[in-house]
Amino acid sequence: MTGLLGTMTHNPQLNRNGRLQHLLTTEGLPAPVLLNILDTAESFMGVTERDVKKVPLLRGKSVFNLFFEPSTRTRTTFEIAAKRLSADVVNLNIAASSQSKGETLLDTVDNLSAMHADMFVVRHSQSGAPHLIARHVRPEIHVINAGDGRHAHPTQALLDMFTIRRYKRDFHTLRVAIVGDILHSRVARSQIHALTTLGVPEVRVIAPKTLLPAKVERLGVRVFHEMAQGLKDIDVLMMLRLQQERMLNARLPSTEEYFKYYGLTPEKLALAKSGAIVLHPGPMNRGVEIDSAVADGSQSVILPQVTFGIAVRMAVMSILTGT
Amino acid sequence: MTGLLGTMTHNPQLNRNGRLQHLLTTEGLPAPVLLNILDTAESFMGVTERDVKKVPLLRGKSVFNLFFEPSTRTRTTFEIAAKRLSADVVNLNIAASSQSKGETLLDTVDNLSAMHADMFVVRHSQSGAPHLIARHVRPEIHVINAGDGRHAHPTQALLDMFTIRRYKRDFHTLRVAIVGDILHSRVARSQIHALTTLGVPEVRVIAPKTLLPAKVERLGVRVFHEMAQGLKDIDVLMMLRLQQERMLNARLPSTEEYFKYYGLTPEKLALAKSGAIVLHPGPMNRGVEIDSAVADGSQSVILPQVTFGIAVRMAVMSILTGT
Amino acid sequence: MTGLLGTMTHNPQLNRNGRLQHLLTTEGLPAPVLLNILDTAESFMGVTERDVKKVPLLRGKSVFNLFFEPSTRTRTTFEIAAKRLSADVVNLNIAASSQSKGETLLDTVDNLSAMHADMFVVRHSQSGAPHLIARHVRPEIHVINAGDGRHAHPTQALLDMFTIRRYKRDFHTLRVAIVGDILHSRVARSQIHALTTLGVPEVRVIAPKTLLPAKVERLGVRVFHEMAQGLKDIDVLMMLRLQQERMLNARLPSTEEYFKYYGLTPEKLALAKSGAIVLHPGPMNRGVEIDSAVADGSQSVILPQVTFGIAVRMAVMSILTGT
Repeated sequence: MTGLLGTMTHNPQLNRNGRLQHLLTTEGLPAPVLLNILDTAESFMGVTERDVKKVPLLRGKSVFNLFFEPSTRTRTTFEIAAKRLSADVVNLNIAASSQSKGETLLDTVDNLSAMHADMFVVRHSQSGAPHLIARHVRPEIHVINAGDGRHAHPTQALLDMFTIRRYKRDFHTLRVAIVGDILHSRVARSQIHALTTLGVPEVRVIAPKTLLPAKVERLGVRVFHEMAQGLKDIDVLMMLRLQQERMLNARLPSTEEYFKYYGLTPEKLALAKSGAIVLHPGPMNRGVEIDSAVADGSQSVILPQVTFGIAVRMAVMSILTGT
Repeated sequence: MTGLLGTMTHNPQLNRNGRLQHLLTTEGLPAPVLLNILDTAESFMGVTERDVKKVPLLRGKSVFNLFFEPSTRTRTTFEIAAKRLSADVVNLNIAASSQSKGETLLDTVDNLSAMHADMFVVRHSQSGAPHLIARHVRPEIHVINAGDGRHAHPTQALLDMFTIRRYKRDFHTLRVAIVGDILHSRVARSQIHALTTLGVPEVRVIAPKTLLPAKVERLGVRVFHEMAQGLKDIDVLMMLRLQQERMLNARLPSTEEYFKYYGLTPEKLALAKSGAIVLHPGPMNRGVEIDSAVADGSQSVILPQVTFGIAVRMAVMSILTGT
Repeated sequence: MTGLLGTMTHNPQLNRNGRLQHLLTTEGLPAPVLLNILDTAESFMGVTERDVKKVPLLRGKSVFNLFFEPSTRTRTTFEIAAKRLSADVVNLNIAASSQSKGETLLDTVDNLSAMHADMFVVRHSQSGAPHLIARHVRPEIHVINAGDGRHAHPTQALLDMFTIRRYKRDFHTLRVAIVGDILHSRVARSQIHALTTLGVPEVRVIAPKTLLPAKVERLGVRVFHEMAQGLKDIDVLMMLRLQQERMLNARLPSTEEYFKYYGLTPEKLALAKSGAIVLHPGPMNRGVEIDSAVADGSQSVILPQVTFGIAVRMAVMSILTGT
């Protein structure tokens, strides 16, 4: 891992009482903390389904969506979650403003903190930026990592865990395969840490060698290069998005070639267990990493993931602020 | 009509009980449905004039402004209308995000629907995009077309009808002229359908041949190429905005030439009935399609149109959600 | 002063009863009006520090952030202030929309006014634009200048006054120095007017000749070109941001050279009184106009300024709407 994480000395996610202070990564979070988030999210499922989708838990709190890297989709999920908790939400697209005026990241954060911010939702292209912010702010301010570089995307992983538990109940009996561009994926890293912590006995990664990090086995996963072997006996398939720019830098010959070997078709899906579920963090590249027949098929839980994602983010915000 | 409408098989605006399910176009909407919107808008006029301009009708509802084509002005009218109904509003400028990541329109919509959206306000450069979305979403989600290609802009036409009724009372005694670039105007199409449905006995279009659609008479309008004849005995003048790019593609020689023949000056306005009112959807090109003396004159109802527009949009949102 | 102010005939800030109608500049505002804002801001300090940072004073009011010049930081302060007063806030980045469609500034304002706007917060690159708007709108609409050209930035100056009073109590005993690019600074102009009105007996400006307006002494300030003399006996140092583009147009040789002579280092700060406080409007250029040891040092009140700024903006909004 490169970038701002290099200077990290401890995990600032838990406070002295073991309570969640920030959500920066699933790495190092104890199973009870993860499970508490999932359980709390269950209680918010009702809120998002009723007529008035609003509870006053974060009324008068100020949530800042600090997006140093644009992402309408992810920003929207956090904005909706915060608004359903009655928070005041301010969106800041920082690329276009202060950073271009030469202000440092921490000066920006100090300024917003001085406005009595309660929570920062941070997306940044540099790994470790949310950690840097978390270690810098006062204890009454909470930081949620909404994706940093190749490092982590913990709310995505948590909504994946919520989805798996909803459909498969017990983590301890599952075989899970993560398929695709593991090398560049902050989602995959956060998924692996969450799955192993929650007791999934076998986590596999399936990818060409050029899309796997060196020594990935150290994370506790089994490595496969071919779908035929990798998908055997699998209960849960977690597909990853393939960034188109990977073709350009010669890691892959073409999207057609990629689809042929790793694209999830009904034929390949048939190699997994019959009741296997298929997840994808979105947005999907249909015809690249996933076939439409699978994406829209009966084993796909891709849209339920999005629904659960709102409840999970409401849960994280609510737990962090202690409401 | 080109584009996504080509595949349309039925008008999905009304549900089985004849109630408004989506607002996509004024075409095919029965007069009682249109009048119900205007009557409901009357009841919201009081809300926007009082001290606390807010009612709780859409509290806890999530309204997504899905703008695939930028328009600060139109987006603002819907945002204000939704907020005065106490809805949670999320603005998405899609050009800059998921679409550029290769996600399809319907995947974007599916995702937002999975977040328990209640309403999509859609602007798109392609005709039929809001129809496509409306036919795709679950029945508890409502779509409002905020302008699609050259096809329709129904809330604009409805606020125009509201304005006409406020000043002229009875649609059945009026002569109305629509002046300008009929060919490229979604506003004109929606106005013509609304006017004829509401019983206006004579609707005229006044434009140079190059700015008229082929066989426009089929819509039930009389065609004029000169203002002198076209404005005679007219009660209501509906001016259209002239897109500057029309000059470039050789449909018109110059803005000066256009203003000379079709720009609404006090002299030309004097050709209409003495109490005629002047409408314009905005933003105006002063000195191109309209003279400032008319735009700011006593017969102009251009700013009241904007005020009524908020009440009309509140009415549409309220009717769609059944509140 | 160039630009739209050229046509100004009177100061439209006060209504016939001497009450604040708009906040456009600190120039010409009587001391009791300034002090009333500071006193009201004190009462809002409690709101921003409590658990539910929200009061219903502006509930149902519509505040439009009209930013013709981008500024995420300033827009955020007004957005947060308005939301904590429970207003509905709509952000409009006008550069990207109607103005590019050829609509005039006043047509844009007329349109938003017709939507029953209650308040416009205006930032514009042209001096006098907020005045132009203020003189144009109906009396029930209030305008706050959030920075116009080189002219004025009154809320910044007011939060500076609030800060000075908090730390130094009595304006009548102070020596205040404003350091840096006075020539291009709307902040400096607003600060000078506020300081002299509030009775500060000695206001100094310290800058190279190329960064001073002609005849600046007429504003009631003493001019210094060197820090050594200028900082002697000073109680309050108000640093200005140095725009990087000033280097390009040959007003300054280099940032290094500027820092050497005018950058506030601990050594230079030691020339002022021992308890002197240091202000900066942000965003800071560390190593250009201010050294990090000063910016983060014990005499810096730069972050408290930001905190006070929210309370001051809440006070201004509350006073303008008479709530």
